[in-house]
Amino acid sequence: MNEKENSFRVGIVGISGYGGGEALRLCASHPNFRVVYAAGESSAGQKLIERFPGVPADLGEIAIEKWDPNKLPDLDLLFASLPSGESKEALAKVRPDTRIVDIGGDHRFAEGWTYGLADVWPEKIRGATRVANPGCYPAASLAALAPLVANKLVDPAGIIIDAKSGVSGAGRGGGGTFGYAEVNEDVSAYALLKHAHVPEMTKALSQLAGASVGLTFTPHLVPMTRGILSTCYARGKVTTGQCTEAAREFYKGRPFVRVLDKPPHSKWATGSNLVYVSYAADPDRGIAIAIGAIDNLGKGAAGQAVQNANLMLGLDESAGLGGAPLWP
Amino acid sequence: MNEKENSFRVGIVGISGYGGGEALRLCASHPNFRVVYAAGESSAGQKLIERFPGVPADLGEIAIEKWDPNKLPDLDLLFASLPSGESKEALAKVRPDTRIVDIGGDHRFAEGWTYGLADVWPEKIRGATRVANPGCYPAASLAALAPLVANKLVDPAGIIIDAKSGVSGAGRGGGGTFGYAEVNEDVSAYALLKHAHVPEMTKALSQLAGASVGLTFTPHLVPMTRGILSTCYARGKVTTGQCTEAAREFYKGRPFVRVLDKPPHSKWATGSNLVYVSYAADPDRGIAIAIGAIDNLGKGAAGQAVQNANLMLGLDESAGLGGAPLWP
Amino acid sequence: MNEKENSFRVGIVGISGYGGGEALRLCASHPNFRVVYAAGESSAGQKLIERFPGVPADLGEIAIEKWDPNKLPDLDLLFASLPSGESKEALAKVRPDTRIVDIGGDHRFAEGWTYGLADVWPEKIRGATRVANPGCYPAASLAALAPLVANKLVDPAGIIIDAKSGVSGAGRGGGGTFGYAEVNEDVSAYALLKHAHVPEMTKALSQLAGASVGLTFTPHLVPMTRGILSTCYARGKVTTGQCTEAAREFYKGRPFVRVLDKPPHSKWATGSNLVYVSYAADPDRGIAIAIGAIDNLGKGAAGQAVQNANLMLGLDESAGLGGAPLWP
Amino acid sequence: MNEKENSFRVGIVGISGYGGGEALRLCASHPNFRVVYAAGESSAGQKLIERFPGVPADLGEIAIEKWDPNKLPDLDLLFASLPSGESKEALAKVRPDTRIVDIGGDHRFAEGWTYGLADVWPEKIRGATRVANPGCYPAASLAALAPLVANKLVDPAGIIIDAKSGVSGAGRGGGGTFGYAEVNEDVSAYALLKHAHVPEMTKALSQLAGASVGLTFTPHLVPMTRGILSTCYARGKVTTGQCTEAAREFYKGRPFVRVLDKPPHSKWATGSNLVYVSYAADPDRGIAIAIGAIDNLGKGAAGQAVQNANLMLGLDESAGLGGAPLWP
Repeated sequence: MNEKENSFRVGIVGISGYGGGEALRLCASHPNFRVVYAAGESSAGQKLIERFPGVPADLGEIAIEKWDPNKLPDLDLLFASLPSGESKEALAKVRPDTRIVDIGGDHRFAEGWTYGLADVWPEKIRGATRVANPGCYPAASLAALAPLVANKLVDPAGIIIDAKSGVSGAGRGGGGTFGYAEVNEDVSAYALLKHAHVPEMTKALSQLAGASVGLTFTPHLVPMTRGILSTCYARGKVTTGQCTEAAREFYKGRPFVRVLDKPPHSKWATGSNLVYVSYAADPDRGIAIAIGAIDNLGKGAAGQAVQNANLMLGLDESAGLGGAPLWP
Repeated sequence: MNEKENSFRVGIVGISGYGGGEALRLCASHPNFRVVYAAGESSAGQKLIERFPGVPADLGEIAIEKWDPNKLPDLDLLFASLPSGESKEALAKVRPDTRIVDIGGDHRFAEGWTYGLADVWPEKIRGATRVANPGCYPAASLAALAPLVANKLVDPAGIIIDAKSGVSGAGRGGGGTFGYAEVNEDVSAYALLKHAHVPEMTKALSQLAGASVGLTFTPHLVPMTRGILSTCYARGKVTTGQCTEAAREFYKGRPFVRVLDKPPHSKWATGSNLVYVSYAADPDRGIAIAIGAIDNLGKGAAGQAVQNANLMLGLDESAGLGGAPLWP
Repeated sequence: MNEKENSFRVGIVGISGYGGGEALRLCASHPNFRVVYAAGESSAGQKLIERFPGVPADLGEIAIEKWDPNKLPDLDLLFASLPSGESKEALAKVRPDTRIVDIGGDHRFAEGWTYGLADVWPEKIRGATRVANPGCYPAASLAALAPLVANKLVDPAGIIIDAKSGVSGAGRGGGGTFGYAEVNEDVSAYALLKHAHVPEMTKALSQLAGASVGLTFTPHLVPMTRGILSTCYARGKVTTGQCTEAAREFYKGRPFVRVLDKPPHSKWATGSNLVYVSYAADPDRGIAIAIGAIDNLGKGAAGQAVQNANLMLGLDESAGLGGAPLWP
Repeated sequence: MNEKENSFRVGIVGISGYGGGEALRLCASHPNFRVVYAAGESSAGQKLIERFPGVPADLGEIAIEKWDPNKLPDLDLLFASLPSGESKEALAKVRPDTRIVDIGGDHRFAEGWTYGLADVWPEKIRGATRVANPGCYPAASLAALAPLVANKLVDPAGIIIDAKSGVSGAGRGGGGTFGYAEVNEDVSAYALLKHAHVPEMTKALSQLAGASVGLTFTPHLVPMTRGILSTCYARGKVTTGQCTEAAREFYKGRPFVRVLDKPPHSKWATGSNLVYVSYAADPDRGIAIAIGAIDNLGKGAAGQAVQNANLMLGLDESAGLGGAPLWP
């Protein structure tokens, strides 16, 4: 909160959305980041404190700009959290020496950009200047499946991912569809056999497997604000213990992945950058279940973005991310 | 569900909204009502079953019309649940022999219209052809306060009403403001010292008191879909027993008011037309607390509307309203 | 609500629990049922109205007895909703001419008892005197899978059921585990590879398939009071249209199953005995998804129990169950 | 998270409860605190990481002790969050040079203890060794009322406090009463005219007013995990502007009180030690409304406790408390 004299100068665009807002919250208590620029659509013209009444007082006085990539101040780092389709052209205008983490989905397959699955491929991210943050569903699902797929413990074909997400993942719009009265006391599946995150997960898993992966993905909306639980099913003659051990080995020394012996609760991650994974398998039936639990705005968006930024800037990977989750 | 040969022909306008939808639900199982007409804005062109996938199959085939008061079929009864300001002109065009219950707010002070506070003034409603349904907050608050004010047990000046409402009371619109992610885990007050329901409550209470009533009203939004709890404070040297007895006497034989010896839960009314009232008073300090609990879409909207319609048509006041609330 | 002179005399045991309470609610507005007996554990000694403040006034005066199968009054029908393990011995003492629907799980494999999957095997239930109600998860899952399995559209081996349930399914106990503060804003899986409902579903599906079925079942707890959504995965070279058509044919004329062209919301069933099913399939990948949505206390417990009772007593199958669901 | 070499040695007793757990979370990221001791009832024998799966890894290895005041290690500071009635005798055994903040209610009127209303009376707390943390309802209500009462803007008699609290305020027990299925979709009042926090608020306000204060307090339970909104009514010929100005002056330089021009949302405080206050008044009717919003586990418990500890130890009052609230 104090001086942060030697801090990196950070900007956030898309501050009106939930991902941008969470990036602001994390930067506010990051020991090496100083937010000097914020831009948004619906909140342009307001001070940060008008939009976020609880933001630390010094940050609160910053005026939210209308987003214009040609009018950026001198920044070390830019977090971009823009709607799909709005990033490609705009971010191409940002100076090369301003590092960018794109929390949105436009650059996950783009040339010149590194895919920021920080717990799995940290070495690729270190020193990168353009990083595409994973989607929220991939963040939870890949964390759970990566050790199994990379160790060839399961058949890369026929993987099923059944994921359950809180509503903040859908962003701030929505009217009736995401209105409280209708989301409350409801669970539903959507985008069956055609969700936008499927190619991203297929590509990452295929890379880990060294083989072509076949994926069925069903996202569900559950009545909570934050959190994703991803329950993944794969075929393989493997035991619970083998899966768990493989994960412990795979994530050895990684600070944000917790391998558990019991199924995690999404709530255990609230407000943090943690991802919990756990396994249950029955070799007789040839089925393995891998579960991943995250905060969709933490590991699923801004938490992972800050972790990526730490890696890009050569900082301690955990800087600004070490706090315990909110409970209850 | 079956023939209902001798039923009254019923129309509902504003079917896309929550009040209109609840009216449909209640009419569907009403022994004397047959819905033959439904009109709405956002759902016009759809069949009822497309908008309400659980509606009884025979009703489901009805096509939702675009609302046009000049193109009404022959109806015995019309439930109108339109946005504020849209009823006056339109409903004036409805044939005089079509009875109307206006669930919206436009006719609560209008000449030629009867105020439909059915548990308090049933005799005024019997035989009426134009009835203005009370607002949801007044429905809960007046039920609790009426016995005290009518019996002059409390000072008509300085009454305070602190009410807590579920979100469906705000209707279907709203985007971010009523979006799940922001309403969840939140309680807030709004419209301080200036809510639209104040004149309505002041007028009704003044009439009961035979004196001018002074009112402070603070509505709150709480994270639930249905329900209102209204906690009312008045000055008076009265005991809990005197208040409770006065209410028992005042509501003697009224089928939908339940006078309790302990504070009610809003949930006890879910899906029903019930209103619970209870009292606590301290004569030494000169304070009386009156609490009213309802389902805002039941007694606060469509339930009361059906009760009014029953009275208007000379039916059993409880027809179609006798079921138990949903629990839990 | 009134006389019901020629009604069947009905008893409910387990009235303190959510299943028993919902049976009471449905019986209260059933045209042919008259509740004359209620028994419970935690509420014994109270009147019904003390436990259920919104119950119709005439029912409210019934005193809740301590459950003793030797002291039953003369009943035509008994709904039993007892904890696991407490039904077998007790219900054996009930007079043979008192029909029983066991909402609990003790008799689903018991000799002399009919399995009450009413939408699939109504003809077996007609005239039966001892019926075991399906579990809540099977009620949702079997409804979705039955048409696929019975028509051999999918491989009976390797079926995966990923189900999401509201909290009332866990009953009234639980303390911290099911306390609001911890269930709220949380989703979690439990009983991996070992839930008690697996044998029940395996048996029913095997019977439908005419072949041995292999099943993986993962139940999840989501933060809502009522509702189950069951997302089922099976292998098969089948199209969405073939699945949907098979279901339309399979459930032709069945009043409570609604086959949809889009994924259902659990909320669409709240308070009703409806079950919604929908399908999505990709023949190229050889995967079919079948979704079932119910109210766990409706089709998943008391609604199905009343439907079974209607069949047992030769009544209209829909008697007392025809109302529309609560919305929103 | 790192060394904290020169940190104060901190213990927490009552770690199984929500207040103790939140104290742990705040201490974990406090720059000057090092948790070296944790004791609890239900969790004794476990490691911290078994009870709190997301706690920082170094803290996670600490074993939770069975609480025994005779077996305390050498501590600079002890946070005690014990059930009512269990603190007095036990805490008397703690060494005088171990500073204590009692988050529970046993010492709020005890001799030798300082009342820890940190935003109002910081100077009394500086250097104290025994501090009794305010109750959660008083924390919200006194913050809002203090400027009005201290400046004699309102009549000290006849103050009404209508407060709405999330469920974590009731602690972890409760079974059915605080079970999700029944708390969800419900709002209710409790402890009418007799809540345990009334004497505490009366004493504090009387001290501020320099006159005897008369108070009516109605707490309500609303379906959320965290948060309190306290809506307070007082008589006085005062304007909104006068109230707001008085509060701005009263809280000048106090880091955790935010005086707003619009009604606050409880959610704006989630996870923080902030308290928001706002005012609306009508001099013609002689009524002033003061609203306070907090996180009941933050400013209402552990946040305030850490603020008190900072004052007691001569640290920066905001140390470890400077982060932004969780949003949404």
